[in-house]
Amino acid sequence: MKFGIVARRDREEALKLAYRVYDFLRVSNYGVYVDKDTHENFPHFSPKDVLPLEEMDVDMIIVIGGDGTVLRVEHKTSKDIPILAVNMGTLGFLAEVEPAETFFAISRVLEGDYFIDERMKIRVFVEGITVPDALNDVVILSGVPGKVTQLKYYIDGELAEEIRADGLIISTPTGSTAYALSAGGPLVDPRLHAILLVPLAPVALTARPLVVPDSSSIDIEVSTEREIILTVDGQFYTQLLPNLTIRIEKSPRKTKFVRFSKRIYPKYTLKIKKKF
Amino acid sequence: MKFGIVARRDREEALKLAYRVYDFLRVSNYGVYVDKDTHENFPHFSPKDVLPLEEMDVDMIIVIGGDGTVLRVEHKTSKDIPILAVNMGTLGFLAEVEPAETFFAISRVLEGDYFIDERMKIRVFVEGITVPDALNDVVILSGVPGKVTQLKYYIDGELAEEIRADGLIISTPTGSTAYALSAGGPLVDPRLHAILLVPLAPVALTARPLVVPDSSSIDIEVSTEREIILTVDGQFYTQLLPNLTIRIEKSPRKTKFVRFSKRIYPKYTLKIKKKF
Amino acid sequence: MKFGIVARRDREEALKLAYRVYDFLRVSNYGVYVDKDTHENFPHFSPKDVLPLEEMDVDMIIVIGGDGTVLRVEHKTSKDIPILAVNMGTLGFLAEVEPAETFFAISRVLEGDYFIDERMKIRVFVEGITVPDALNDVVILSGVPGKVTQLKYYIDGELAEEIRADGLIISTPTGSTAYALSAGGPLVDPRLHAILLVPLAPVALTARPLVVPDSSSIDIEVSTEREIILTVDGQFYTQLLPNLTIRIEKSPRKTKFVRFSKRIYPKYTLKIKKKF
Amino acid sequence: MKFGIVARRDREEALKLAYRVYDFLRVSNYGVYVDKDTHENFPHFSPKDVLPLEEMDVDMIIVIGGDGTVLRVEHKTSKDIPILAVNMGTLGFLAEVEPAETFFAISRVLEGDYFIDERMKIRVFVEGITVPDALNDVVILSGVPGKVTQLKYYIDGELAEEIRADGLIISTPTGSTAYALSAGGPLVDPRLHAILLVPLAPVALTARPLVVPDSSSIDIEVSTEREIILTVDGQFYTQLLPNLTIRIEKSPRKTKFVRFSKRIYPKYTLKIKKKF
Repeated sequence: MKFGIVARRDREEALKLAYRVYDFLRVSNYGVYVDKDTHENFPHFSPKDVLPLEEMDVDMIIVIGGDGTVLRVEHKTSKDIPILAVNMGTLGFLAEVEPAETFFAISRVLEGDYFIDERMKIRVFVEGITVPDALNDVVILSGVPGKVTQLKYYIDGELAEEIRADGLIISTPTGSTAYALSAGGPLVDPRLHAILLVPLAPVALTARPLVVPDSSSIDIEVSTEREIILTVDGQFYTQLLPNLTIRIEKSPRKTKFVRFSKRIYPKYTLKIKKKF
Repeated sequence: MKFGIVARRDREEALKLAYRVYDFLRVSNYGVYVDKDTHENFPHFSPKDVLPLEEMDVDMIIVIGGDGTVLRVEHKTSKDIPILAVNMGTLGFLAEVEPAETFFAISRVLEGDYFIDERMKIRVFVEGITVPDALNDVVILSGVPGKVTQLKYYIDGELAEEIRADGLIISTPTGSTAYALSAGGPLVDPRLHAILLVPLAPVALTARPLVVPDSSSIDIEVSTEREIILTVDGQFYTQLLPNLTIRIEKSPRKTKFVRFSKRIYPKYTLKIKKKF
Repeated sequence: MKFGIVARRDREEALKLAYRVYDFLRVSNYGVYVDKDTHENFPHFSPKDVLPLEEMDVDMIIVIGGDGTVLRVEHKTSKDIPILAVNMGTLGFLAEVEPAETFFAISRVLEGDYFIDERMKIRVFVEGITVPDALNDVVILSGVPGKVTQLKYYIDGELAEEIRADGLIISTPTGSTAYALSAGGPLVDPRLHAILLVPLAPVALTARPLVVPDSSSIDIEVSTEREIILTVDGQFYTQLLPNLTIRIEKSPRKTKFVRFSKRIYPKYTLKIKKKF
Repeated sequence: MKFGIVARRDREEALKLAYRVYDFLRVSNYGVYVDKDTHENFPHFSPKDVLPLEEMDVDMIIVIGGDGTVLRVEHKTSKDIPILAVNMGTLGFLAEVEPAETFFAISRVLEGDYFIDERMKIRVFVEGITVPDALNDVVILSGVPGKVTQLKYYIDGELAEEIRADGLIISTPTGSTAYALSAGGPLVDPRLHAILLVPLAPVALTARPLVVPDSSSIDIEVSTEREIILTVDGQFYTQLLPNLTIRIEKSPRKTKFVRFSKRIYPKYTLKIKKKF
């Protein structure tokens, strides 16, 4: 079994824990690769084990960090490699274990005593542009902060809504605890085959969050003269020209999380309460 | 082909239109039965064609009224008889045609030129009590208006949330445009296999609407000393004792609506805008 | 200086602390009276010092309990007697001191080292009915839980809004952290001369909370056929006939809280975070 | 009596109506000046009557356009000149008369048959920067759309709230029907001496809109590393450096609207219903 290791770059504890995990796995005679960015921030790994995320081809990636670190891994790797996420963030919605449980979790992995929790992702189609799939959300934003954008969205070819708003969040169930929640969206059980559309500060009070089947194709027609910003998981940014159509669909790819329990609740809803 | 006819009892236009439909179908040699309540409010039907809803065993029921009339039919009939709903209500979320289109719609039905739109329903299990299945929603309310109730809800046996609130709405996708919307819930596409839980005026600002798969079994534990009121589709009321558990699941029954188009949008979202 | 003492009836610690305060003040030769309900739940006070709240005529009332206990004192006393509130509740929005600080607080009072924080109250005028003034809120509710009520509200004689809703909350700034908050209202600084109107689960998404000057006279026209329930501070309930008009105005009375600091924030906003 | 005339630059009807008003007033021997921008878009005015807004010193300005045009006049004129606003916008929250009533309104003005409705404005103090006073709102936004900003706000020197959000809207009562409403704020009666703080998509669900007295001094501490954008009335934009404090207070200036009725409702609340 081959492992990849990625740590949050701005937190020493995360980098040190990554080194301990690396050391343990190497001593135990497993193949281990360390992400290049991690090594650059903590240059103690053996250079021959260092690889850019884009080239990692391992059986599991151990990610030590917050949700941002997990999302970075997701955006850069090209295969759906299972992720064991150790929480070194503020909330860690995506993480499975706390730092103190790291080695216990790894031993369960080595014994094969774990599940894979597959999470759906969404894919954006815009002419001339390639962006990574979103595990949390795709957000279409006015390029001028505070100026409304005019958007129409079509579900399976039918006009569902026409809004003037700061933007529109298109979220997976996984992302329903992230930006979509701040904008007034509901929590969506990660097992549900759904995509969530949440307008950001819409002018009309009748514009409400909408939950649609994940088999829907969603077309968003942006009709403002101003530039548009498209973000993926709050990590990847790109500027788009005005007057275009963005298609959004379920991605063929999945994110695979290593889990030790099939229980979703109360962890899922409980973390919301800590969000302040 | 045999038809049933039901009209809104408090609106003369609805009753008169019901009579014209009855007359037309009879003259055209179709079997026609009229709901007893309709006849009592407009006693011009032939007594031999009058039946209580509970005994109607026809191929299609033509319902002339608002959403309330449709829900009454749903609660009283024992088979999943297709419903052609003619809108004589304020909004008519459930209706397919406007009064002026009635005979055109009936002629399409007679030619077999229509679809059946199946909508899921939810069933309530409470010890010692039988209530009809809900097409829109089941609501658990404090028996004392304005006094909070203490509720825990479990999804598939796991505690999802614990709230103090005026109540809890458990809604189908169909019901997401009804009471759940007023309480801050999202719109849910009727094709989605989901159940929606929306707390009513919860004390904690962190209690949010939750969308779960319709395969979930939902247990609601009411732990207040006060009496509880349970309503189904805002039509059926029952008082429950305190300190009990209510189980909610997808019903094996469906509501079948006659539709002439498979398009859901923009009608679905547009009606919201008229809700004032 | 003469004191009154009132404790929460259902919590022994509160009753015991009340007795210690009583004992201390008596030994220190101050006049002390104990509320009849408190004595009935902890019959150790000297009977000659026991009085019903309605007859208490003292310089300050020491209230040991939650917000409910403070509201009970407010509704029953006939003079605007300063209240020193010791928190024995869950949140204690109205309380000034925690139990451990009780005697320190009393000694500051005896030294005259305190402020009076005057809070406005609202008064309800309904034909044929007298209800206590509200420190938090007056709520107009549908008598049938879950059934909407039709309400029009007029500000200074002008129609401000017409709603179909579960009810309407009319709140003071003090009450903005209570029921009004659960229904989607804003926090209102207690120094603001304002009254807050918050619809409860309104059918129309365009019905929003409204903040008006406290010099406004507010007329609420209830036009439903069903009975109406009117509550004051969630403590006092009365049933009203349908089709009536309720007038609401600022009361000439005030609630006077003993405070040791003129600071409002961050306590005011911080307690919200603990509301779960 | 001397008049100024300003029209919306992008709508020919507005420019033509402006010319007719100009012509009428000139023929009637009143002093009339036309805004330079208006003339540039419709160059039929006599060049000697054309002035930049900044230099206009008249008794009343007749503004023909939407709320944006009124705000442009407010930002550029240096005296508190009464404004008669003719609605050529979508909603026209600030306007008093519809185009067809223009000459009737002017004749009432000439007869002195009108009121002045004074609206409070808010002033921003940031080191090294001068921005116009806001009639609607001051908005502090993350310079990177979709990335949260860390903000603390202090009311009269006391920490009221600490948020991570897309931004913060600080609004007058007049602005409560604008951006603040879209972000979840309440309607505030324009007679109320209040300032409204509304967080934009805050991460914590416990961060709520807050209404404070307009005598408060509000300090906003921005502690993000990223740049900040400050907008005034959605018209004036400026970029600020990170890690700074912004003070907001009631301005000594007022906006003076010409009104023909002292009635506020139902116009104030009714326009909301049309907002889609």
